[in-house]
Amino acid sequence: MTSTSKILATTALALGAIAAAWAQQAPKPEQLIKWRQSAYQVLGWNTARIKANLEGSYNKDEVIRAANTIAAISNSGLGSLFAPGTETGKGWHDTTAKPALFTDTKKVGEAAAALSKEAGELVRVANAGDAAAVKTQFAALQRTCKGCHDDFRTAN
Amino acid sequence: MTSTSKILATTALALGAIAAAWAQQAPKPEQLIKWRQSAYQVLGWNTARIKANLEGSYNKDEVIRAANTIAAISNSGLGSLFAPGTETGKGWHDTTAKPALFTDTKKVGEAAAALSKEAGELVRVANAGDAAAVKTQFAALQRTCKGCHDDFRTAN
Repeated sequence: MTSTSKILATTALALGAIAAAWAQQAPKPEQLIKWRQSAYQVLGWNTARIKANLEGSYNKDEVIRAANTIAAISNSGLGSLFAPGTETGKGWHDTTAKPALFTDTKKVGEAAAALSKEAGELVRVANAGDAAAVKTQFAALQRTCKGCHDDFRTAN
Repeated sequence: MTSTSKILATTALALGAIAAAWAQQAPKPEQLIKWRQSAYQVLGWNTARIKANLEGSYNKDEVIRAANTIAAISNSGLGSLFAPGTETGKGWHDTTAKPALFTDTKKVGEAAAALSKEAGELVRVANAGDAAAVKTQFAALQRTCKGCHDDFRTAN
C-alpha cells in the first residue's frame, strides 16, 4: 500500500465512522413527525388554557405560564422537525403538512417569524396582566396560527 | 308553583347550565393524556438536541432554544394534565403513569420543583455558553428526569 492509498483508506474509514455515527444519532422521520405533532399539541393545550381564562375566571399566573410555553415552542426551531424525508409519513398519525410547507421557504419563514413575534408580544402583555389586552393580543396570535394552517396544513 | 319552588327550579336550571358549559369546556381525559404525552415528547426532543450538541458540534443558540423550551414546559403547570379521571386511559398510547403519581402529592411536588429548578439553571448556564458547564448542569437535569421516571412511570 502506498502512503497515498493508506491515507485514502484511513480517510474513507473515518468518514464511514462519522456517517455511521450520524445515521445512529439522526432521528428517524417518524420520530421527527411525532415530535412536531407533539409540539403543536402543546401549543394547542396552552392556547386552550388561555381561551378558558379569557372566557371564564382569569388567572394571571396561568396565562403567563401558558404564554411562556407558547413563546418558547415558537422560538424552539420547529423548522428542524420538517427535515427532508418528513414530507409524508406517520408520527402519532399521518402528517397533515402540505407539500408547500417544504418548498415555499420564504412564506414559511415569514409565518414562523410572525408566530414568534406575536407570541413574544403575548408574553409581554400577559405579564402586564390586563385581561382585555391579552384578549386582543391572543386574537393576533391566533390569526398567525390560522394563516399558517390555511396555507400549510391539510384539513384533518 | 310557590315562590320558593320557582326560585329552586330557576337555580337548578342555572346550575345545570353551568355544569353543561363546564362539561363542554373541560377537556376530556383522553385529551389531557394526549397533551401530557405530547409535553414529555417535546421535553424528549429538546433533551435529545442538547445531548447531540454536547456530543457533536456545539451550537450555543440551539442549546439556549432547547433549554428555554424545557424550562417553559417544566414551569407550564403539567400537574393540571394529571387531573382526576386520567389515572388510566389512552392518549396517543396507554398512559405510563403509575398510580402513585396521583396519590403521593408531596413527592410529586418535590420532583416537579426539582425539575423546574434544574431546568432554570440550565437556561442560565446555556446563556453563559460554556459547554462544559452545560454538560454538568444537563446531567443534573437528567437526574431529576430519571428520578421521577423511576418513581412514577411504568417501563414502556
